[in-house]
Amino acid sequence: MTAVCPVRAALRARGLTLPDPPAPAGGYERVRLVRGMGVLSGQFPLRDGRLGFIGRVGAELTEAEGHAAAELAALNVLAQLDAALRGFSRLAGLLRVDGYVASAEGWVRQPAVLDGASALLVAALGERGRHARAALGVPRLPLDAPVELVVSFVAAEAGCG
Amino acid sequence: MTAVCPVRAALRARGLTLPDPPAPAGGYERVRLVRGMGVLSGQFPLRDGRLGFIGRVGAELTEAEGHAAAELAALNVLAQLDAALRGFSRLAGLLRVDGYVASAEGWVRQPAVLDGASALLVAALGERGRHARAALGVPRLPLDAPVELVVSFVAAEAGCG
Amino acid sequence: MTAVCPVRAALRARGLTLPDPPAPAGGYERVRLVRGMGVLSGQFPLRDGRLGFIGRVGAELTEAEGHAAAELAALNVLAQLDAALRGFSRLAGLLRVDGYVASAEGWVRQPAVLDGASALLVAALGERGRHARAALGVPRLPLDAPVELVVSFVAAEAGCG
Repeated sequence: MTAVCPVRAALRARGLTLPDPPAPAGGYERVRLVRGMGVLSGQFPLRDGRLGFIGRVGAELTEAEGHAAAELAALNVLAQLDAALRGFSRLAGLLRVDGYVASAEGWVRQPAVLDGASALLVAALGERGRHARAALGVPRLPLDAPVELVVSFVAAEAGCG
Repeated sequence: MTAVCPVRAALRARGLTLPDPPAPAGGYERVRLVRGMGVLSGQFPLRDGRLGFIGRVGAELTEAEGHAAAELAALNVLAQLDAALRGFSRLAGLLRVDGYVASAEGWVRQPAVLDGASALLVAALGERGRHARAALGVPRLPLDAPVELVVSFVAAEAGCG
Repeated sequence: MTAVCPVRAALRARGLTLPDPPAPAGGYERVRLVRGMGVLSGQFPLRDGRLGFIGRVGAELTEAEGHAAAELAALNVLAQLDAALRGFSRLAGLLRVDGYVASAEGWVRQPAVLDGASALLVAALGERGRHARAALGVPRLPLDAPVELVVSFVAAEAGCG
């Protein structure tokens, strides 16, 4: 009998699978875990090593595309957690998501875009995926990405989750 | 005999009272607390559910208005802590305040604005309100707010504080 | 016999010495440490109390100057840790570096600039200097600095490190 991982099952129900976790863009770690405190490096809407969306929301991209980009970045958050913790059983819970949205001048609906990330994290991780959030708008992000997610979490012990 | 809460007393001495904590603007938690590590979602200068100040410091708003907006956002930080911890007795101490200031182009006095938040937090919470801080300027913030505060803290046990 | 501090030795090998830790620019702490969780206030490329580099990367400054500015800001990170922990022996490890780069419009190579900070932190602190990182671009930073580093860490017990 194979144990079913509820995180993968929840993703499958949305037609999603966990990708390989993206490599760092410089001299830092994908995930850093010290004494149970975990932090992920900034995650972008990458798919197979390339940005799935490029540019600013409200300019090159619509709000719906920004929402989809936030969801894709959150999928990479899940992939990084899975790789770093070897499954989700050691995840005690997410803490905070700082969500940066590359925004056209004067465009201020960043929270609506970031709900794409928040919804996926909670759908996949349940209670443990709940998080505080800070929404920020910036003119441009590295790589010209529309969204960057910066996530902290707490790690625990054993079992698939 | 009623115990006097020193935090409320300190606020009263400044003519302030704790408001109701603002509701989230999307699918996330006001405050997240996992194994004693606490984080608050981004707090804005909201009063009765509406922004008390709108726009950018150095453009639509003066530095003094920015300072007042930072103080109002810090009052909401205190309201969120009070609601999440059911009083301040379980607060071991604040850790960091990331303060984002919506700034006119070329305007770089963000630290002076954020002192409005830092002063209130220390006045209300004493030693436990001390914090590290990062000041950042951005062109616009969600809702067209002038200030957003992102606060982390450590939680402990019992007693009014 | 004098114990040799490997951090200072690693810096010396690069022709660097630990400066005095810069003073805060307002009503906050240089470093805040609560129950082992540590955070540093935003660090800038200051040298003897003045910015060693001023302006935006891709505009007033070249990418190479931005890289040097990030290294200088990281040297101040080390100075703050040394002062707060009275040496590096109580440092369990860095967690995350949020690196903000003041960027010309459309300039998106922030990770290359921040590698100047990451490389120094790992060279000086070894395994304990490894960190997750988030790279962000903003139009301007406080003081018109090109780089601001926001660092979190975990503290432990005794010995020079």
